[in-house]
Amino acid sequence: MLNQHQKPPLIHTQTGKGPILPAICLAAMLGAGLGQGAAHAAGRTMTDVLEAAKPSDWRPIDPANTLYMDISSGRVIIELAPQFSPKHADNIRALVREGYFEGLAITRVQDNFVVQWSDPKNARTPRTAKRTLPAEFTRSAKGLPFTALPDPDTYAPQTGFVDGFPAARDSEAGTAWPVHCYGMVGAGRDNDADSGGGTELYVVTGHAPRQLDRNITVVGRVVQGIELLSALPRGPAPMGFYDKPEQNVTISRIRVAADVPPSERIALEALRTDTTTFTDLIESRRNRRDEWYKVPAGHIDVCNVPLPVRVGSTSSSAAHP
Amino acid sequence: MLNQHQKPPLIHTQTGKGPILPAICLAAMLGAGLGQGAAHAAGRTMTDVLEAAKPSDWRPIDPANTLYMDISSGRVIIELAPQFSPKHADNIRALVREGYFEGLAITRVQDNFVVQWSDPKNARTPRTAKRTLPAEFTRSAKGLPFTALPDPDTYAPQTGFVDGFPAARDSEAGTAWPVHCYGMVGAGRDNDADSGGGTELYVVTGHAPRQLDRNITVVGRVVQGIELLSALPRGPAPMGFYDKPEQNVTISRIRVAADVPPSERIALEALRTDTTTFTDLIESRRNRRDEWYKVPAGHIDVCNVPLPVRVGSTSSSAAHP
Repeated sequence: MLNQHQKPPLIHTQTGKGPILPAICLAAMLGAGLGQGAAHAAGRTMTDVLEAAKPSDWRPIDPANTLYMDISSGRVIIELAPQFSPKHADNIRALVREGYFEGLAITRVQDNFVVQWSDPKNARTPRTAKRTLPAEFTRSAKGLPFTALPDPDTYAPQTGFVDGFPAARDSEAGTAWPVHCYGMVGAGRDNDADSGGGTELYVVTGHAPRQLDRNITVVGRVVQGIELLSALPRGPAPMGFYDKPEQNVTISRIRVAADVPPSERIALEALRTDTTTFTDLIESRRNRRDEWYKVPAGHIDVCNVPLPVRVGSTSSSAAHP
Repeated sequence: MLNQHQKPPLIHTQTGKGPILPAICLAAMLGAGLGQGAAHAAGRTMTDVLEAAKPSDWRPIDPANTLYMDISSGRVIIELAPQFSPKHADNIRALVREGYFEGLAITRVQDNFVVQWSDPKNARTPRTAKRTLPAEFTRSAKGLPFTALPDPDTYAPQTGFVDGFPAARDSEAGTAWPVHCYGMVGAGRDNDADSGGGTELYVVTGHAPRQLDRNITVVGRVVQGIELLSALPRGPAPMGFYDKPEQNVTISRIRVAADVPPSERIALEALRTDTTTFTDLIESRRNRRDEWYKVPAGHIDVCNVPLPVRVGSTSSSAAHP
């Protein structure tokens, strides 16, 4: 009785949840989650909001902050977050440029938690980059554009968005930090707070492990290809590690998009999070307007707010008009 | 620098996150996430709590409320929640017993959202069971044992646990309902609130889509084998549907454990959620005690509280002493 022409549970468009589609496809995908004749009297749906978005509501994702990670099943694209972890961003770029990650592997896939890659032999030493860096767990909230959510959060005094990243802040302490939502990328470390640096990275692939917030350096977010990581076979060893070398998923290479010839880049655009369009989008998801929902939630978790990404008009003929 | 003998990000033991191990293995798995020489001065870790648990802290999962769903990669085990949805539990048992699900298929795998199964041809009609039932979205909170969390929640006035299920309640309205955490199972429906009934079921395999709470009938929880669902290839069509019949994952059969000869049953036990042991476990996760954590979270989301399940002593020689 429920097929792709009907709806529930309703489509849940989360950034990086599948192949990034041209805007026209994105609209079609959203539409597929809404019934024919749905009543929108009480407000606008996300489709309505995205269809009304202006070109200036989208920002190009900076190629200098973009990583292409290639594995046999395809490409994972990560946007770095130098707003929060500038030293790690620099070091990860240096690691990438010296080829540190080439031939390394995904060695850990823990269900409802993380996918992680590193040197399985623990033998490689960075040549130009650093192995460890001082922690960048939080930063000053001063001067940081922060689109705040009005909703209560279990873990932080306030949550919201900074330049496209889900974040939290503590006005009393004057600090802000990225939060561990699905798709966020962090730098693994040992017990010492300053023992990370980017040689090992993990991606959140389960319910937001918010207890990690302010305990580890978040370095970015997967903006395309998360499903290549989240659908990997789970590791059978403790903590989701693979227990046989042949299970490891080899990373053929990681590159900074800025180092790739422009003609070979994928011109991704992310919906800006400091606009009224984004505020409208949040509201469209806080209280769903279609016929399927009987009780609008009235609230939204920072990790349930979609962060749309599309292929930009410079690289796609199907761009949004 | 980070391997399985070291730790971060720390193990995140969530029910149904992997093969259920005998208790002795469960302890070993937890131990692997804790460093040698970790200081526990401030309190007990989850390992400490589970090691000190009494046999009476565990409850056998009732075979009458247990479903074995077999797919080619293995078995998924679901505990029904008749406390919340008694009519749906009865109807799902009836559907199972008339063989309704045999040969049906998983047709939808949407990244960071749900895995769903149904009749791909939409041609099968229940013989003894009903196709639709009145909604069981919420129930009276009266008389319901409720282990409340003290932590603020984004969506509900209060969250906690009822008989092993994550739940919420509204004391003013006098209602309670199960919440859509990772691994929860619900009955798909069309726009009409009373259009579900159990012929189509979905499992949450992403960040808790709490906007579904009170909008759809939750029927249970996956207690073993969730990784057989969560690691399935994502569907390429809108809403994560497979677009070719050969992508569908066939369900060879679903049975009620009570209908299986006792010698062939898997005697699962769940940690009771109405005990001081469970309250201690919550606290051990609210504020992590090992050396890795620098800033204890001070709070915990209802969907981040582990709900341990083990193979009981009646079926395993490796049971916890």
